[in-house]
Amino acid sequence: MSRLGAQTFIYEKQPTIAAHSSFAGPKEGQGPLAEWFDVILQDDLLGQKSWELAESEMVRQCMERTLNEGGIPVDQAQAMLSGDLNNQIMASSFAARKLGIPFLGLYGACSTFVQSIVLGAALISGGFLENALCGASSHFCTAERQFRFPLELGTQRPPQASWTATACGTVLLLADGPKDAIKVTSGTIGKVIDLDIKDANHMGAAMAPAVFDTISAHFSDTGRKAEDYDLIVTGDLGWIGRNLLNELFRAAGIPVPDEKLIDCGASLFYQEQDAHAGGSGCGCIAAVACGCLMKRMEKGELNRVLLAGSGAMLSPTSSQQGQSIPGISYAVCLERGKK
Amino acid sequence: MSRLGAQTFIYEKQPTIAAHSSFAGPKEGQGPLAEWFDVILQDDLLGQKSWELAESEMVRQCMERTLNEGGIPVDQAQAMLSGDLNNQIMASSFAARKLGIPFLGLYGACSTFVQSIVLGAALISGGFLENALCGASSHFCTAERQFRFPLELGTQRPPQASWTATACGTVLLLADGPKDAIKVTSGTIGKVIDLDIKDANHMGAAMAPAVFDTISAHFSDTGRKAEDYDLIVTGDLGWIGRNLLNELFRAAGIPVPDEKLIDCGASLFYQEQDAHAGGSGCGCIAAVACGCLMKRMEKGELNRVLLAGSGAMLSPTSSQQGQSIPGISYAVCLERGKK
Repeated sequence: MSRLGAQTFIYEKQPTIAAHSSFAGPKEGQGPLAEWFDVILQDDLLGQKSWELAESEMVRQCMERTLNEGGIPVDQAQAMLSGDLNNQIMASSFAARKLGIPFLGLYGACSTFVQSIVLGAALISGGFLENALCGASSHFCTAERQFRFPLELGTQRPPQASWTATACGTVLLLADGPKDAIKVTSGTIGKVIDLDIKDANHMGAAMAPAVFDTISAHFSDTGRKAEDYDLIVTGDLGWIGRNLLNELFRAAGIPVPDEKLIDCGASLFYQEQDAHAGGSGCGCIAAVACGCLMKRMEKGELNRVLLAGSGAMLSPTSSQQGQSIPGISYAVCLERGKK
Repeated sequence: MSRLGAQTFIYEKQPTIAAHSSFAGPKEGQGPLAEWFDVILQDDLLGQKSWELAESEMVRQCMERTLNEGGIPVDQAQAMLSGDLNNQIMASSFAARKLGIPFLGLYGACSTFVQSIVLGAALISGGFLENALCGASSHFCTAERQFRFPLELGTQRPPQASWTATACGTVLLLADGPKDAIKVTSGTIGKVIDLDIKDANHMGAAMAPAVFDTISAHFSDTGRKAEDYDLIVTGDLGWIGRNLLNELFRAAGIPVPDEKLIDCGASLFYQEQDAHAGGSGCGCIAAVACGCLMKRMEKGELNRVLLAGSGAMLSPTSSQQGQSIPGISYAVCLERGKK
């Protein structure tokens, strides 16, 4: 059904993104991308008793909204592929419990959103599914107490730290979607890359080498270059990680013009919002892609985009044990359908 | 490429299990299945500094052994699909870091092994991969301190508790394997099912309804019955959960003869080994399937087996917040190749 690159799936039967939704928290809804989000939360607890349940409720609402937009009743949704940063991907699995949709739990840290599209598109292109819900979420308050410190401590954040976004993004992939919808044309699976960064507050540095590796593999597998894309959009490298990625491309002699490289984390907040290195979390690239990026493609502003998620595969345990932070990255090529 | 059941993938191009390996810990290696395991660990630290690193090292060794058996050099392995019970699937992602194989991190709790085969087989059958390494692991010492209490406390275990196996199982799926190898012919994706069990020491009860739901869906999607299988092998329901599953089949009027139903958890330990309700953990079904089950199929004792993993999607946080335990189950049909 599909040709094989070394790490890249080419979807010969190209799934369409028939619908997408983006949810953003109160802080994210005051940033430069506010106008693009479908829902801006006024209350980041969503009426729940805990932040974890709130994140899960955000996932449920975001998945349901996307199904509604795409005209698929919940009981006809064939699979939900998603994950999040909580222990045992609690936000996604508890949302799947309420939705009752066959569930494939994934974990690629903050690259989970792109991982879910790589796999969802393969299952559709391979003829196994007619529709697939793909997505990922994060919540500032669940991630801080999970990976760093309880919020109540008021721990000071170093300048290279990123701010985990309270956000969610979901897409509905269809085997037979509208002709003019965005198509998923290829997907690249990353390797786990670790250049010995041990500072859990310096995610951009830990992830940039993995993003470099995956985008390079994508170029090599497809025979394409940066000039073949209108934009290359990375996940949550933040200001510092984005510059490191630029540096890696330069050192390898792979030309990627600075203006073609946009990082969702570096775009999510104004600098005066005190988010330091920028936004992060699974929900960052998910909400920015489903909000801003896909809408700009649908308007005709962008035709072909490479979306590269970036994940730091650390855990509280690995940090406490002094381990360095393994990074991973998945990439998908999105192309605007021709009317 | 493949027909579509409501929850079941039918692999028209059937991937073969070209190689498989099973690792078992010292206690598991004294149980009734000892003769079947490929490697029995004498030291459950594997020379590492922590149990988490030990589990990861077990995954790495088990994956490498399977690649060697299958004659695929590490640098030609196209994808590794795996997961474990640690926060942020640390055992798998740290093993993937050492192996350098493109990595798809999965989380289906103790059903992750079967989830990895469902997805790996789809990627091969769909033409995206020529080979895929699938597997899962667990370690008693990492899981106890993760989900329950630090071992040092010596907390007394209730009779319905299961014993997380120190074990790992991996398979190498090939698009073009030997004719007489075991074939993966179909795979069923489960829904998240929760019947309000809140006791984190009573996993069998939390998971049995999900296993019932997935096996029922598999029968319904494929038009098959229990009599079409030589065995139905469940993951880690243990003694109590296995009886509950029997009860659910009886109540629903689905005939599943008692002698056809084998649970890996209920088979892993002698009762005098003090494992209470039986073995559990991602590695339980993985090691028993890769050790005992597949070897019995290759000997010609079994021709068609339904392998149904069972996962409890709880987290330490969800337990502390008083949430009930969502269960999930994936199933694959394994068939002996004809010479």
